[in-house]
Amino acid sequence: MSGKSLSLAELAVLVEGEIVGDSEVMISGFSPLDTAESGDISFLVKAGLVDILSDFQGSAVIVPMAVEEAPVPLIRVKDPYLASARIHTLLLEKPFLAKGVHERAWVGKDTTIPQAITIAPLATVGERVKLGERVTIESGVVVGDDVEIGDDTTLKANVTVADGCIIGKRVIIHSGTVIGSDGYGYATDSRGFHVKRPQVGIVRIDDDVEIGANSCVDRAAYGVTWIKSGSKIDNLVQVAHNVVVGENCLIVAHVGISGSTTLGRNVVLGGQVGLAGHIVLGNGVMVAAQSGVHNNQKDGARIGGSPAIPMKQFVRAATQFGKLAEMGRDLRKVKKTVAELTSQERQIVPGEKE
Amino acid sequence: MSGKSLSLAELAVLVEGEIVGDSEVMISGFSPLDTAESGDISFLVKAGLVDILSDFQGSAVIVPMAVEEAPVPLIRVKDPYLASARIHTLLLEKPFLAKGVHERAWVGKDTTIPQAITIAPLATVGERVKLGERVTIESGVVVGDDVEIGDDTTLKANVTVADGCIIGKRVIIHSGTVIGSDGYGYATDSRGFHVKRPQVGIVRIDDDVEIGANSCVDRAAYGVTWIKSGSKIDNLVQVAHNVVVGENCLIVAHVGISGSTTLGRNVVLGGQVGLAGHIVLGNGVMVAAQSGVHNNQKDGARIGGSPAIPMKQFVRAATQFGKLAEMGRDLRKVKKTVAELTSQERQIVPGEKE
Amino acid sequence: MSGKSLSLAELAVLVEGEIVGDSEVMISGFSPLDTAESGDISFLVKAGLVDILSDFQGSAVIVPMAVEEAPVPLIRVKDPYLASARIHTLLLEKPFLAKGVHERAWVGKDTTIPQAITIAPLATVGERVKLGERVTIESGVVVGDDVEIGDDTTLKANVTVADGCIIGKRVIIHSGTVIGSDGYGYATDSRGFHVKRPQVGIVRIDDDVEIGANSCVDRAAYGVTWIKSGSKIDNLVQVAHNVVVGENCLIVAHVGISGSTTLGRNVVLGGQVGLAGHIVLGNGVMVAAQSGVHNNQKDGARIGGSPAIPMKQFVRAATQFGKLAEMGRDLRKVKKTVAELTSQERQIVPGEKE
Repeated sequence: MSGKSLSLAELAVLVEGEIVGDSEVMISGFSPLDTAESGDISFLVKAGLVDILSDFQGSAVIVPMAVEEAPVPLIRVKDPYLASARIHTLLLEKPFLAKGVHERAWVGKDTTIPQAITIAPLATVGERVKLGERVTIESGVVVGDDVEIGDDTTLKANVTVADGCIIGKRVIIHSGTVIGSDGYGYATDSRGFHVKRPQVGIVRIDDDVEIGANSCVDRAAYGVTWIKSGSKIDNLVQVAHNVVVGENCLIVAHVGISGSTTLGRNVVLGGQVGLAGHIVLGNGVMVAAQSGVHNNQKDGARIGGSPAIPMKQFVRAATQFGKLAEMGRDLRKVKKTVAELTSQERQIVPGEKE
Repeated sequence: MSGKSLSLAELAVLVEGEIVGDSEVMISGFSPLDTAESGDISFLVKAGLVDILSDFQGSAVIVPMAVEEAPVPLIRVKDPYLASARIHTLLLEKPFLAKGVHERAWVGKDTTIPQAITIAPLATVGERVKLGERVTIESGVVVGDDVEIGDDTTLKANVTVADGCIIGKRVIIHSGTVIGSDGYGYATDSRGFHVKRPQVGIVRIDDDVEIGANSCVDRAAYGVTWIKSGSKIDNLVQVAHNVVVGENCLIVAHVGISGSTTLGRNVVLGGQVGLAGHIVLGNGVMVAAQSGVHNNQKDGARIGGSPAIPMKQFVRAATQFGKLAEMGRDLRKVKKTVAELTSQERQIVPGEKE
Repeated sequence: MSGKSLSLAELAVLVEGEIVGDSEVMISGFSPLDTAESGDISFLVKAGLVDILSDFQGSAVIVPMAVEEAPVPLIRVKDPYLASARIHTLLLEKPFLAKGVHERAWVGKDTTIPQAITIAPLATVGERVKLGERVTIESGVVVGDDVEIGDDTTLKANVTVADGCIIGKRVIIHSGTVIGSDGYGYATDSRGFHVKRPQVGIVRIDDDVEIGANSCVDRAAYGVTWIKSGSKIDNLVQVAHNVVVGENCLIVAHVGISGSTTLGRNVVLGGQVGLAGHIVLGNGVMVAAQSGVHNNQKDGARIGGSPAIPMKQFVRAATQFGKLAEMGRDLRKVKKTVAELTSQERQIVPGEKE
């Protein structure tokens, strides 16, 4: 399938792993443990499950360091999950196949077309666009005027990149995603009519970013909405105008980030999280799914809930939440008993003041 | 409007109904009670409202069995809502109008085109695609390579179906929806950089599925992401990689289902529900809107809240939630009073130990 | 950049402002305070920050009435935020540039094309469509049959407008948005199979509406789904069948409005809000982000939470929520103490009945 074949020794170098067994076995495919065939390499994350390798039909397995031997050739690594991603990617790697600009695509004037490029049928590329080497633009994509796209970037079918946006190298944008739609900004007059504020900034997406399907990144009101390098955004995510997403963030599906909010490095936002506007989340902040964040967060904060509170506190409160009706009953009962006790006290201790 | 005309007797057979009145009245349209004209059939869900039929301007009404007579011809059925759906659909049914492949569409090589097909202008169909009979592919649709599409399936404008996905018969996919985007899967290295895990599986959608607009179904990492027959998915829904949706599920707008989660038959997910990954929801599970589900659920479970708890418990807790501030105040007051009582007790019962 | 140049006096008239300083200074651009250059006008919202104008490099500033003088020419207005939106828009205004129907676009038969129109390459317009003057239809857009589009309306790249929908004047619809997808309506038979209810209504969008990217407005089951004039809808919003959105509403990203719900005028829905079906929100209702609304709401109601309660009550309850685990502990302790006190009471006051 991949057409590529590498020795176990070559793969071990890539992942800084140690080989146990035949280092010359040739690997041409990657597969989960239960579907592996001869020529395939698989991976095992938990050392405790090493016994299942006795039934293994493939040619080699990536294992954690805790596994010292097995009836099949091994690559021992610190992180088998990470190593398997690297090896699988390598096995799938193919040289870029430049199909050129399809006769049924449309490319505007003054757009430079490098030698190595694929622009599919019924894709549209505007005027004065700068395209890097080995860019792939699939069918149905619309690239506006004055856009810049870096080397090795792929725009999947039906993506829209509006005028003036800048996209880095090795970026992948999945189908239906919209880069550079107008930010949501209005000023309301005395009659309640909303006057549109012009949105004249751009979107800048740095190298190695991946954005899922049907997401939206709005252009800045002025300046840039900025997704920094290595960040990975899932499907159906909303990134509002003037947001800055730091390096290597993970933003899961259905997240909404309001205008002018800034994320540090390696922030993780769980699914359906909402962030208010004009706040700052420090490096490494983690937000639990469905939370709502209204305030700045320090580096490394772990928060949850809507409005969000520290994660441990949220988990305890959420556990207690299910007992709220019972608590209400108990409290009413206790109040009553205490009221009775108090009135008896008064009778017993007559000198007592209220 | 529909061009079709059927007698009340013919319609009654379709829905196993009993006619009261003229069984030969001809019906050519369907309309709500208040806008019906001569030739139209309408429906009444609540027998108690039968009096409003005295003003009815149409030709017949579908009613529940509890209605025994009225001043208009009737079809009495167990479920008027269901019967009206069947009759309306029948009245609208037209023979498939094959428009062929439009000269402005693009179809790749080795794709088989059946006689009865409509591929609209500016639609793109890839290479080696297998198209069933009476398939409709609207403008702006992009179908990747090696896709299979069953008989009588419709892809609305601007839908994307990526390489290798398999779609059954009588499927409807609404505009902007993306089938087969990459799953969201990364392994993080020691520097915090996220390495993409290849997503080499497909999406399989079985017969009679309908998916709304701007939804996403990601391809599996390996194997299949699978929507089983008869399930109906609303707009803006996220179905992650390796999810399995059982038969006849109802999944309302903005739901997010995380990777490798499995739904049984006839599961109902309310709007904006989020499901964690790698969990199993049994047959007939119902989840209230905006809930977050983190654990396996037994057949027939009814749950709500984030994190979700049994529905009755959630409703009671949610009702109490509004009184939380008051509860806090009461509790502080009671604590204080009890502390006072306790100290008085000590004075009264000097021998008492703490 | 705008090519337009106006005197401060001309701009002051537009916003009913008072000039301080040179009324003849020429303005050709708009910029935030910190990036303004000669020829630019900026705006200052907070009078208290007036001192920063001493470093200002532009030519004039829009200020609130509380600012009486500054080292630069001023326009004093009641609402600088609003005035700046008006002035910026005026400076950017250009005459409509009619590019006509591109030879690579597709337009169906019996569609009337006004003189002043732009239909971009690879856009599709159906049959019998009525297009107003100065309409812009970008690449990848699909307009169905029998659609009506008013004067000065813009459909951004990859928008879909399905058959029969009616769009007013000066409407902007951003990329990827779908107007007129089928509503989500089924009747379930005794075997659990969902029978589709035909969705034969349309969507009507009135003048001056703006809809963000990748949103969905479903067509009515019968009749119309209706977005009234001046309402502004953000990205990734779901508007279900037969919803009515009143004039000048603001609906933020990821909101979901269920079927047949009606919003009055100037309703504000925060991000990720969900509304149940068949409810009515009165004029000016405001709903906090992530709330879930299940009941009718009176004019001017301010609500929050899921399920939503009055906003003040919600804020107090949400604040208390974080203390729930502590409350649970306190309550258990108080119960225990009270139980002990009660039993002591019985010993002290032997004649007491329970």
